Amino acid sequence: MTQIDLNCDLGESFGHYVIGHDEQVLPLITSANVACGFHAGDFSVMHQTVDRAKKNGVAIGAHPGLPDLKGFGRREMKVSPTEVYDMVVYQIGALQAMTVAQGTRMNHVKPHGALYHMASDQQKIAEAVVQAVVDVNPDLLLFGMDGTFLTKVGEKAGLHVIYEAYADRTYQTDGSLTPRSMPDALIADSGQALAQVLEMIQYGTVTTTTREKANVRAETICVHGDGTAALAFAETIRRELQDRGITIKAWL
Amino acid sequence: MTQIDLNCDLGESFGHYVIGHDEQVLPLITSANVACGFHAGDFSVMHQTVDRAKKNGVAIGAHPGLPDLKGFGRREMKVSPTEVYDMVVYQIGALQAMTVAQGTRMNHVKPHGALYHMASDQQKIAEAVVQAVVDVNPDLLLFGMDGTFLTKVGEKAGLHVIYEAYADRTYQTDGSLTPRSMPDALIADSGQALAQVLEMIQYGTVTTTTREKANVRAETICVHGDGTAALAFAETIRRELQDRGITIKAWL
Amino acid sequence: MTQIDLNCDLGESFGHYVIGHDEQVLPLITSANVACGFHAGDFSVMHQTVDRAKKNGVAIGAHPGLPDLKGFGRREMKVSPTEVYDMVVYQIGALQAMTVAQGTRMNHVKPHGALYHMASDQQKIAEAVVQAVVDVNPDLLLFGMDGTFLTKVGEKAGLHVIYEAYADRTYQTDGSLTPRSMPDALIADSGQALAQVLEMIQYGTVTTTTREKANVRAETICVHGDGTAALAFAETIRRELQDRGITIKAWL
Amino acid sequence: MTQIDLNCDLGESFGHYVIGHDEQVLPLITSANVACGFHAGDFSVMHQTVDRAKKNGVAIGAHPGLPDLKGFGRREMKVSPTEVYDMVVYQIGALQAMTVAQGTRMNHVKPHGALYHMASDQQKIAEAVVQAVVDVNPDLLLFGMDGTFLTKVGEKAGLHVIYEAYADRTYQTDGSLTPRSMPDALIADSGQALAQVLEMIQYGTVTTTTREKANVRAETICVHGDGTAALAFAETIRRELQDRGITIKAWL
Repeated sequence: MTQIDLNCDLGESFGHYVIGHDEQVLPLITSANVACGFHAGDFSVMHQTVDRAKKNGVAIGAHPGLPDLKGFGRREMKVSPTEVYDMVVYQIGALQAMTVAQGTRMNHVKPHGALYHMASDQQKIAEAVVQAVVDVNPDLLLFGMDGTFLTKVGEKAGLHVIYEAYADRTYQTDGSLTPRSMPDALIADSGQALAQVLEMIQYGTVTTTTREKANVRAETICVHGDGTAALAFAETIRRELQDRGITIKAWL
Repeated sequence: MTQIDLNCDLGESFGHYVIGHDEQVLPLITSANVACGFHAGDFSVMHQTVDRAKKNGVAIGAHPGLPDLKGFGRREMKVSPTEVYDMVVYQIGALQAMTVAQGTRMNHVKPHGALYHMASDQQKIAEAVVQAVVDVNPDLLLFGMDGTFLTKVGEKAGLHVIYEAYADRTYQTDGSLTPRSMPDALIADSGQALAQVLEMIQYGTVTTTTREKANVRAETICVHGDGTAALAFAETIRRELQDRGITIKAWL
Repeated sequence: MTQIDLNCDLGESFGHYVIGHDEQVLPLITSANVACGFHAGDFSVMHQTVDRAKKNGVAIGAHPGLPDLKGFGRREMKVSPTEVYDMVVYQIGALQAMTVAQGTRMNHVKPHGALYHMASDQQKIAEAVVQAVVDVNPDLLLFGMDGTFLTKVGEKAGLHVIYEAYADRTYQTDGSLTPRSMPDALIADSGQALAQVLEMIQYGTVTTTTREKANVRAETICVHGDGTAALAFAETIRRELQDRGITIKAWL
Repeated sequence: MTQIDLNCDLGESFGHYVIGHDEQVLPLITSANVACGFHAGDFSVMHQTVDRAKKNGVAIGAHPGLPDLKGFGRREMKVSPTEVYDMVVYQIGALQAMTVAQGTRMNHVKPHGALYHMASDQQKIAEAVVQAVVDVNPDLLLFGMDGTFLTKVGEKAGLHVIYEAYADRTYQTDGSLTPRSMPDALIADSGQALAQVLEMIQYGTVTTTTREKANVRAETICVHGDGTAALAFAETIRRELQDRGITIKAWL
């Protein structure tokens, strides 16, 4: 039986500010990456998001980010590995308490935005993130991309790593994502996206922008819930995968 | 054997800003109320404070406050009970993870500043704070003053309540503290403070500003670490209590 | 010639968070109350909002609020008059520089949310707001409601006060707004709203919820831009007033 | 007549957090760089600092920084030139209003910490800072170091640039400061510091760490007020310069 998880960033609203269509995307996904109040989200939104995920039977994960609400955690800051360790412990802990208080539990951790990229590219930041997860709860799954420091360090530390892949982003020869600054970075056609996902799941490869094959492990696919097009896209991916007998389910 | 706990607010520094003399007060106290990043403290300071408390064998507690760094959590805000519940769950969780990550554990919860006062005076705020503690970890001790909603609601919910009393504040006929706005609110003389503490510990009463007796339960005494005078005061209280055979120890 | 100003709160987005339909409401109004980064808005949004208002020939005003992004400046905080004075000076100054830098100017000040209510009901807060305006630039217009401390203190200090009235809120016998907690606080019918506005402009009275007449000065009408219904409402008011020969224009 | 200005960063306290000995350093300096609420300071502290500077006859300047209270504005963030422009306009405007409200005026602008370094090293950031100053008030003086983009761009834009030099930092062959990471970056000996300042003022050169001469323009010397040693250092520099007939005075 082939199994795949569909994950989405959730709980990114803040106070009176609303981002995302959490209610609509929840029935489509199996893992929610919940913002923890640093780059997005707040304690009220976290409570609500945990409740909603629980009601939808969606696995809950922490989505820790840089302390930068204005930049939505997307711009790099010069933070030391120690600071990264501390901010990840803090955010994981806050969400963990929120899940326990609502009678459920936290299942995974996926760093957000610039922190995700920094943990992918810089060994010391990867080590800080991984150590924070290990120290708070070594049973937590770690989401990250194949070939990055984040997953390499996570594996080495004995964490259960879940390999994340993208349906709507193209890949380069080395298995990394084409940077968003490049013209062919995004996949707009849902047929092409589906073909890419199927290839990754069934053969463990991806067809790169140079028409070569690169090895890519795909255990969870990142989908988006911010807009009508994104929701339709997620719905298509989900249905087509199910039609091919692939089980859509969180890794627990 | 008579036992008393000495508690102090700690970890109130923020970034480059330093408040308190944590290193000096830690050898004098048995419970540390650690700021959780809302009214004071940040994730780096929390890590350091947990480390220091652990090294000194001091019990660690969460000191959740209102989200108001500029006001140091001392000014009331119109927050709903639900918001209070969520902000307490969040802050307790963050500190809990910090203690677990450092191989130790969180022992108690004491609300800070305006939140402490609101939880003392308003039943719904008390219920929100107590429910947050119960839902995150019902084994946590709850610090609060005798005769307040906070401790009444805490007892009713089955929490282990530790009654807090003050050495350097006078009491009114009903057992409540004289407001700081009154001329005789503070006790500057360490002899008078010591006498008050001894009376509270040994007889369960306090001599009020009108020279009457009020019942006051005292299981933990709040001391301060912000300045030379405060440190000397804490040192005197500690030594004099020990000299009278009273055990200075955290409730575990 | 009868003249009326239509004002709307603008520039309330923050970072990646969008609130309001500023582009659509700008052609309908004549004065924009621009958030100044405390309860909403940020320096980037302020720049953009000043640019847009300038292009639309809409007068620009500062909309200073309490420092509470999570609560959108709508919940009261215990702030001293001195703090209010300082936060208003700061926010007015920031927007003033933004207008000067874009080759335009700031025309008015209208406090936001809880600060507006506090300045209406509490004399000392009104005095703090008014003094801040006087000290930064006494030529600025002050928006406020008839019968409040804000406008009384403003008049006494020699400021040019512009009286603000509401199209979609009912009034009580004393000329104050029916609190939102009451069932008949809001006017949903645009015909009734228009009739109320016309009565206020032409006769200086309003028909209260008890069918009496109360005196109400109306020189600027507050409209909303957050949603399709609000935009349609603003459009109707604007067109109907113009059709009756009333000039829609900012007070300069 | 040889004239030199002594400047110091001031008003860096925040809420209950105190940094610096502003009262003691004010009689020693002639220009105060006042934090504007982003990396340090708040609206209350700004008011107090403007008052104190005015009473001491010290010229007041804006000290805009990155929006990073936790990092004290010392860590680089990936901000665009547009964001820098907007944040500088905002902060300059806030302080300008504060000075006008207290019956005085703002005299200069000096970027803080990481923003100062970014504006020194990156042309586009320098252009953003300079344009913000030009657009808000082209009569403001701009403080910056000789040989940097900040002062080059400032001169080209027609601003009155004041060249800043350091008494307690060594210089490299190209006239730039020795990075703090190097062992010989700091000058601890006040005699050496004084000699360096005198050489810069009288000959426009500095003796570098390799014992060569580099050209360095020095019109204002940056001193520090954070600690007993810093204050003694500032006092010595001031007295020795005065004894040599050098006029200690702000550039107005």
